Amino acid sequence: MGVGKTLTTMSFAPQPSDAAAIATIRVLAADVVAKSNSGHPVIHYPDVAEGAPMGMAPAAHILFSRFVNANPKNSKWFNRDRFVLSNGHACVLQYTMLHLLGYKLSMDDLKAFRQLDSLTPGIEVTTGPLGQGFANSVGIAIAERHLAAVYNKDGFELINNFTYGNYNFLFWARLLGAKHIPVFCGDGCLMEGVSSEAASLAGHLQLGNLIVVYDDNHISIDGDTACAFTEDVGARFLSYGWQVLHVDNGDSDLAAISNAIAEARSEKNKPTIIRLRTTIGFGSKEQGTHGVHGAPLKADDIVALKTKFGFSPEEKFHVSQETYDAYAKVAKRGAAAEENWNALLASYGKKYPKEHAELTRRIAGKLPEGWQQSLPVYKSSDAAQASRKLSEIVLTALAPVIPDLMGGSADLTGSNLTKVKSSVDFQPPSTGLGTYKGTYIRYGKLLLFRVREHAMGAIANGLAAYGGIVPFVATFLNFVSYAAGAVRLSALSRVQVIWVATHDSIGLGEDGPTHQPVETNAHFRAIPNLAFWRPADGNETSAAYAVALKSTHTPSILSLSRQNLPNLESSTIEHASRGGYVVHEEANEDLTIVSCGSEVSIAVDAAKKLKEQGIKTRVVSLPCWLVFDQQDQEYRLSVLRSGAPILSLEALSTLGWERYSHEQYGLPSWGASGPYQKVYEKFGITGSNIAVVGKKVVDFYKKKGGEVVSPLVKAFTL
Amino acid sequence: MGVGKTLTTMSFAPQPSDAAAIATIRVLAADVVAKSNSGHPVIHYPDVAEGAPMGMAPAAHILFSRFVNANPKNSKWFNRDRFVLSNGHACVLQYTMLHLLGYKLSMDDLKAFRQLDSLTPGIEVTTGPLGQGFANSVGIAIAERHLAAVYNKDGFELINNFTYGNYNFLFWARLLGAKHIPVFCGDGCLMEGVSSEAASLAGHLQLGNLIVVYDDNHISIDGDTACAFTEDVGARFLSYGWQVLHVDNGDSDLAAISNAIAEARSEKNKPTIIRLRTTIGFGSKEQGTHGVHGAPLKADDIVALKTKFGFSPEEKFHVSQETYDAYAKVAKRGAAAEENWNALLASYGKKYPKEHAELTRRIAGKLPEGWQQSLPVYKSSDAAQASRKLSEIVLTALAPVIPDLMGGSADLTGSNLTKVKSSVDFQPPSTGLGTYKGTYIRYGKLLLFRVREHAMGAIANGLAAYGGIVPFVATFLNFVSYAAGAVRLSALSRVQVIWVATHDSIGLGEDGPTHQPVETNAHFRAIPNLAFWRPADGNETSAAYAVALKSTHTPSILSLSRQNLPNLESSTIEHASRGGYVVHEEANEDLTIVSCGSEVSIAVDAAKKLKEQGIKTRVVSLPCWLVFDQQDQEYRLSVLRSGAPILSLEALSTLGWERYSHEQYGLPSWGASGPYQKVYEKFGITGSNIAVVGKKVVDFYKKKGGEVVSPLVKAFTL
Repeated sequence: MGVGKTLTTMSFAPQPSDAAAIATIRVLAADVVAKSNSGHPVIHYPDVAEGAPMGMAPAAHILFSRFVNANPKNSKWFNRDRFVLSNGHACVLQYTMLHLLGYKLSMDDLKAFRQLDSLTPGIEVTTGPLGQGFANSVGIAIAERHLAAVYNKDGFELINNFTYGNYNFLFWARLLGAKHIPVFCGDGCLMEGVSSEAASLAGHLQLGNLIVVYDDNHISIDGDTACAFTEDVGARFLSYGWQVLHVDNGDSDLAAISNAIAEARSEKNKPTIIRLRTTIGFGSKEQGTHGVHGAPLKADDIVALKTKFGFSPEEKFHVSQETYDAYAKVAKRGAAAEENWNALLASYGKKYPKEHAELTRRIAGKLPEGWQQSLPVYKSSDAAQASRKLSEIVLTALAPVIPDLMGGSADLTGSNLTKVKSSVDFQPPSTGLGTYKGTYIRYGKLLLFRVREHAMGAIANGLAAYGGIVPFVATFLNFVSYAAGAVRLSALSRVQVIWVATHDSIGLGEDGPTHQPVETNAHFRAIPNLAFWRPADGNETSAAYAVALKSTHTPSILSLSRQNLPNLESSTIEHASRGGYVVHEEANEDLTIVSCGSEVSIAVDAAKKLKEQGIKTRVVSLPCWLVFDQQDQEYRLSVLRSGAPILSLEALSTLGWERYSHEQYGLPSWGASGPYQKVYEKFGITGSNIAVVGKKVVDFYKKKGGEVVSPLVKAFTL
Repeated sequence: MGVGKTLTTMSFAPQPSDAAAIATIRVLAADVVAKSNSGHPVIHYPDVAEGAPMGMAPAAHILFSRFVNANPKNSKWFNRDRFVLSNGHACVLQYTMLHLLGYKLSMDDLKAFRQLDSLTPGIEVTTGPLGQGFANSVGIAIAERHLAAVYNKDGFELINNFTYGNYNFLFWARLLGAKHIPVFCGDGCLMEGVSSEAASLAGHLQLGNLIVVYDDNHISIDGDTACAFTEDVGARFLSYGWQVLHVDNGDSDLAAISNAIAEARSEKNKPTIIRLRTTIGFGSKEQGTHGVHGAPLKADDIVALKTKFGFSPEEKFHVSQETYDAYAKVAKRGAAAEENWNALLASYGKKYPKEHAELTRRIAGKLPEGWQQSLPVYKSSDAAQASRKLSEIVLTALAPVIPDLMGGSADLTGSNLTKVKSSVDFQPPSTGLGTYKGTYIRYGKLLLFRVREHAMGAIANGLAAYGGIVPFVATFLNFVSYAAGAVRLSALSRVQVIWVATHDSIGLGEDGPTHQPVETNAHFRAIPNLAFWRPADGNETSAAYAVALKSTHTPSILSLSRQNLPNLESSTIEHASRGGYVVHEEANEDLTIVSCGSEVSIAVDAAKKLKEQGIKTRVVSLPCWLVFDQQDQEYRLSVLRSGAPILSLEALSTLGWERYSHEQYGLPSWGASGPYQKVYEKFGITGSNIAVVGKKVVDFYKKKGGEVVSPLVKAFTL
């Protein structure tokens, strides 16, 4: 890494058990990968599957045995240090450590690596797609800084954990923009540094609680080339305001590893990156060569490896009692730490009962009593407003009541309307721009291709994973797609993130089809465990927030209009909270129109026009499919009942509406640029035209004859 | 910009009409924006709507009147210089220039700016979402270098156009990673440079034909801050291998502007960035202040502006005959240039008839005669293969026949199987890694969050927009989502890009849910004009390529399996080319199963098992919904006919399948990690279980009674 400090041996107390423990990690990694690989090659990235864990064993051992403050018996202890392995492909290292430390991960579980239903206790965030974990860890570190600022008091340092990240060269090469070396290696072209928004943000925010170990094993890199590259990494991180440390012999200089971590912990105002020079596949016959990262270890190599480290070549998945004992001591230390912390928390409670109550409530993931009473409620006579504005009104009402809310916009604050007036920016106090107690995060305008949305989403996943915080993030709906990678991981890893997604249809008008979502709703509605809300008015907007806030394991996207929306006759928070309800009822109807968002009032208008022609038309609002699908079948069938055809209406692609309707009206293709009323007219999404379409539908089904059965009546459920 | 050359006046021939022309552009911009803004404020980014066009008027005038080689009477002339305005919000500048130059854009069209159905002739690519246009222009420049290398001969420099890009400060601030200055401006934190992958690639590829004008009008930036920032821009671009030039007075030093462009054109082996210092809203009372970029020009300011430039304050949309005449001369020069080029092309044809035939064919967007005969054809007895492998076989067969094919993978070449053995890399000859004649592009492993997929997609859009090239790009299907912004713009701007998207389901096995697509197909099927193909076997894979290659105005995603797929009984290229067809026919069926991709053979298996129970089951393969929907209704109803229930089967979200079926089987939620057969079993996607489900469906519909009508029978079409 060149630039930065190189550490030499300082005070470090070696233990007799260290060598055996490190050898055990190396041998176990080889065994686990070999077993999961039996049959046919299943590891697509063999270069990191076992090679990196073998190389990183000393650092992992030192980190977990000497520093990580965590209780294996309670992986959810709030003040635990967080460990994020951004490169999911090296996860065998993490699983091995969790087993040795006594987490609920048995040797049989290890043997089931990459098999169905294998366990993942003690894993903080879901990584895998490269880069997500790094931004997650920045979010986690922000959460810690914020809660510490809010709740710590003199003599009560309740929140003071570290976030440790572990990344390998392959990851950093991507993060920092190394070209694919074997291919692109020209003269001066190598060092195209591309820095990470998240890294830069971490430096700016002075996240001294973030410590990143960078496994520099020089995969695919030869001699001078590597030097040139790593020079750049160090310089770049220094320029970001990080501390940069070096360990030149990460294979066996345990003291240097230990000292680097200690030094990182003592730097309070800067995140630290420790560059650890390791040998990939250390101990293998082919260590440090292409052989070890081009293919899984061969059987004879595993035999040689075991022999070399004093293991029996016949024994697989072997851990000596000495090693288990050593880690049991570590686990005991962690359990004691939690006990001490619990005592500290109890005495804090005596001195600061209000803060104690609030903190423990937040840790428990509960919202304050009665918060729902602050939700704005509307009468149908209230003035029409854009739902982005209604969202601002909700945030303004809830922010003082729910301190857990923490968020911001990707540089569209003025359009997304997410900044509550009195709120303070989350900033290091030294900048004079805010404080760590602040709850408004400026995600800013950072990268090409609106990656900022993507990083913002991944940082929010980290904030949510930490606990005690309900993060919200904002941009135009069309650009939430840019964060698809983070959104799907929110849903997959079951963390609560609220997306404030404004300008949600052709209703944004003149910016035109490049900014008008079409496929977006089908996309997000198809993501499991993602609540996609498209509220139609004030009460529905309040309901969307209400359910999103109560859904502690589900991310939500609130799709909000730029244009004003009238308040509906029969909308209530309670109705809308069921995901779907009858806005306008008619007995013995000829037609039901089901719609959502800005089109519900158009459906109501069409129903009135149809009534004038003697066609009785019900109107159903379906603001959230996920929530509606969770209602009992009886309720759902009362909303979308058999007996008359159902026509759906939404100003986007109709794809997916077939699930709730017999006929579908929407955009046939892309939107258009123009004043929004004109655009709606162009596509026939007006009360008059929908009445014409509705009449067609009624006539068609009359002619067709037979019973009209609700589309919700199905032969089976998945 | 600090680093780089500052040019002073060299040879430049001013024209008496220059001043009037520049003033006209400024005044027109104000008029156009004022008109489009009447009623209510529609411009969300007033800072660039008129302010930037007013500031950039001198550069636009010099560029178009002195340098741009194009024929307004034929905006499709192949060797025209391309102009890309990456910041779509400043598009009034481009429209104004096109009008003055005599493109098919009348004054009435200008008055209809941002209104419905307004025209956009002479626009090379669809931009707007910031950043896309820059990567597009890199793609366009690559296309030019490649075709020049392939077809130019001594004395016949047929292909030698330049690509000019115009970007403003706001855009570059994003591209280069400036933090949002008013918010984040701390001490040393300002300069977090984030460089662009596309910019770095352009430097590496030595694209001397790419000239970027950067409008440095210091929006939102004060004094020293700006200096520090721009220093960094220059240094960074130099380090990318770009030429960096400066024009300190872009408001009135026409000679400097001209000389900079001339210098840029003379640099053959480096792209050039010209930093032009301008005054935003030049001529306005509030020029260079926050006033002019915070809100549209006020009426009295427009009056003052017109008076200042000698225009009548009452007259709107006025262009003097002198200015029209001046641009008519420019247009004439362009027409003559095309005439000369046509003559050159004709004599080239005499000397190089083969190359001439090929080049003119490619320019016409036609494929070589008989290319389809090279498509691999399979019998059902042929060995099962993964469709990613079948894709490789197609590419290997077609590459020698269709030289138009040019593409690569985002660093997953070995998994995507996109590199045809004999193919040469597209590289500057000096690197020794390939040549400009090469057709394989190494998109490499560049950025955090797999932005590389996004940039790759946007570069491919540029390649396609140039013409004569059929670009393909590759990654895992799950990560095509990361390029959603570029994919939707391919479809919206109707350019032909082929995505080779492998590892397309839970069939990828052990990498697990983070890599297994679920919502992906619903997302892409909802994008208008995007052909999403999921072929089931060899002939279907050939058909997918066949249709994708014939669809010159439609992008395609080929969703391909990691696992082996058997060849179906009745699949043929012809059948599959209709987007859907009957794989297994039965008269008086009890059930139809409709499926696609790797699940079709499972459906066939289920049908066999059902037959054993006396349940007659048809099987339909639906590899491409877009293409199937384009077939006549009679054909579609013969495939998915009334009379028996239709059950869909796909190993992803079922959302959208309701359009083609009565009942849907798929993933209820996320996938799982494990050997792929086990994962399929876990979710019941096996012949045996689908037979059980099929029986349930048949029983349910029998019990329900009444006619079973095809879901394709509808009351209306959109």
